[in-house]
Amino acid sequence: CPIEGRVLKPRHKGVTMVLDKGLGIRALKDLLEIAGDYIDFLKFSFGTSFVYPHDILIEKIKLARLYGIEVFPGGTLFEVAASQGKVNEFLFRAKQLGFTTVEISNGTFDIGEKLRQESIIKASSLGFKVLTEVGKKDRNNPLTLEEMKTQIKEDIENGATKVIIEGRESGKGISIYRDDGSIDMKMLEGIVSSVPHNLDVIIWEAPLKKQQAVLINQFGPNVNLGNIRVDEVIALEALRRGLRGDTFKST
Amino acid sequence: CPIEGRVLKPRHKGVTMVLDKGLGIRALKDLLEIAGDYIDFLKFSFGTSFVYPHDILIEKIKLARLYGIEVFPGGTLFEVAASQGKVNEFLFRAKQLGFTTVEISNGTFDIGEKLRQESIIKASSLGFKVLTEVGKKDRNNPLTLEEMKTQIKEDIENGATKVIIEGRESGKGISIYRDDGSIDMKMLEGIVSSVPHNLDVIIWEAPLKKQQAVLINQFGPNVNLGNIRVDEVIALEALRRGLRGDTFKST
Amino acid sequence: CPIEGRVLKPRHKGVTMVLDKGLGIRALKDLLEIAGDYIDFLKFSFGTSFVYPHDILIEKIKLARLYGIEVFPGGTLFEVAASQGKVNEFLFRAKQLGFTTVEISNGTFDIGEKLRQESIIKASSLGFKVLTEVGKKDRNNPLTLEEMKTQIKEDIENGATKVIIEGRESGKGISIYRDDGSIDMKMLEGIVSSVPHNLDVIIWEAPLKKQQAVLINQFGPNVNLGNIRVDEVIALEALRRGLRGDTFKST
Repeated sequence: CPIEGRVLKPRHKGVTMVLDKGLGIRALKDLLEIAGDYIDFLKFSFGTSFVYPHDILIEKIKLARLYGIEVFPGGTLFEVAASQGKVNEFLFRAKQLGFTTVEISNGTFDIGEKLRQESIIKASSLGFKVLTEVGKKDRNNPLTLEEMKTQIKEDIENGATKVIIEGRESGKGISIYRDDGSIDMKMLEGIVSSVPHNLDVIIWEAPLKKQQAVLINQFGPNVNLGNIRVDEVIALEALRRGLRGDTFKST
Repeated sequence: CPIEGRVLKPRHKGVTMVLDKGLGIRALKDLLEIAGDYIDFLKFSFGTSFVYPHDILIEKIKLARLYGIEVFPGGTLFEVAASQGKVNEFLFRAKQLGFTTVEISNGTFDIGEKLRQESIIKASSLGFKVLTEVGKKDRNNPLTLEEMKTQIKEDIENGATKVIIEGRESGKGISIYRDDGSIDMKMLEGIVSSVPHNLDVIIWEAPLKKQQAVLINQFGPNVNLGNIRVDEVIALEALRRGLRGDTFKST
Repeated sequence: CPIEGRVLKPRHKGVTMVLDKGLGIRALKDLLEIAGDYIDFLKFSFGTSFVYPHDILIEKIKLARLYGIEVFPGGTLFEVAASQGKVNEFLFRAKQLGFTTVEISNGTFDIGEKLRQESIIKASSLGFKVLTEVGKKDRNNPLTLEEMKTQIKEDIENGATKVIIEGRESGKGISIYRDDGSIDMKMLEGIVSSVPHNLDVIIWEAPLKKQQAVLINQFGPNVNLGNIRVDEVIALEALRRGLRGDTFKST
């Protein structure tokens, strides 16, 4: 049977975070018209917002906001700013441009726990929703499960709205994902055990369909999923509702 | 040399069936303007038509019809309905929305031969073109070649317009495709032998370029191909005409 | 830190050559508005320009020209013409349509050195910028490093504006790329050694992000890169500027 119980926007669980690597205005309008109800967060990937023409950037943010979508620049842009000691400038600029959410991460550049904490608190106090990201992009230097669990707890205590588990754009060889993109279920369960009464705080970056299907079959249609490709939003919504073979049969 | 003899629309062979996983209105207009002559069938993948906003769905169907394209909802949506005993409701609703073709399949949910037969006949009697799909999405439980051959023959006898050989969106580990996406030539020949005088009745789902190239080199420019990505329609047409390295050299 | 020193258009180094496999008019406008400053060459892949509706083809070329972008048909179309003894007709037609650049290649069809040389000279004399491509699409019959070096030198002597190192759309198992898409650094260095004082003459087809990252980390933000997917142009520009994890950390 199809899956029952999909919750609607605005919602705190079942959120979909979409990866925008450079949509033009017409393509963004297309996406919003057809799938605006299914998108909760829109991430302008890594440093892309920095290379957009200014007026396009402003218009994209406004358009997404019209559909009740939280828009934020990728964590890399925060890290670049943090590495230059410019967290304040980053936050003020983000506010000025119309971003409503920021991502605090140290996937590439180790900003240290203190600056991470301060940045979460500062961003919250400025009225941003704060997403933090847990995980290292360098596959030769991954976080241990214990380090991930600690960071998740601390981020929540410091005021993070939700915590993103890093999956990169590839979904391979990082955090809960093995090199072939399959899920390390022990790692997954370990992370879940760190938020036993509050799974809704976690957003799993899950760019690959097989990852989305496993997580939906495991946690139901209202699991939070991120790094969804712009051309997969509708497909994911069908998957959440059991309207695709991968989740239809198992329920 | 380039390949001669490509037939034009409307046509019964050389058809291209395109997989639409969620195009917006502008993107669909783009596709139709640039490649409308090269598209014969447009599939709204699996259950996606169910999650579109109503007015968008209606407009998409209308636009495609203006270009003489047969539009149909993915087989999964039929299977969901059939699993709930609602084949009639499904067909009436599809008619109401403007769909001109339906896909009858049991890739995920085994509806039984009797219901499959009845559904083909019922849909035909309502004026739909009927595509059936042969193949199981579950790679642990594939159809044997003999089962596929039997089903192809029965579907045609029951009135199917064309029979689709399942390739999924991935083109891997299903029906004629090995796990790496290469073609099992024995399987291919076996299927061909089941329709010796009527190869035009088969649509091969062939999402990968190397699959398309092998099938074109094997059967010529007017082989029926399906599950073509929206951004590969123009490329496929060039491939059919020997205007791409993969088919240019071999002719 | 982010990477300094990115040069702006019009430029002779740091050029980005984008692969257009069939963008519609709206999508092309989107691309130009958001990334026009980051595109130097736009290739209408292989023989696709031949299958476009005439008015769409004309409008696409005009639009790209408005943004100061050189537009050219894929080398396969030249090779098809050359194989039929119709180089002159090809060049006149390309000029008529508004193309400002042509690609001279023999990736699929061996046109011989003499015709290659004559075609470069003829195209230059007609006012085209001439890109040549070095590499064979057939992985069973690759060029040796020495053959590549010789051809690069000869093409430049004959008047080629830039020389493209073949990477295909896949970036795998061709010229400098191993079957898994990783770079054969000896091959890379060999090619570089053939143009020791003039690396800017080489455009590396690098469709995969990991290839782009290695080449940027090796040669800096202003390396010439080609066969960039239309939805990766903004991402590549961020990568060039160290605004993505893959190039941010290493600098």
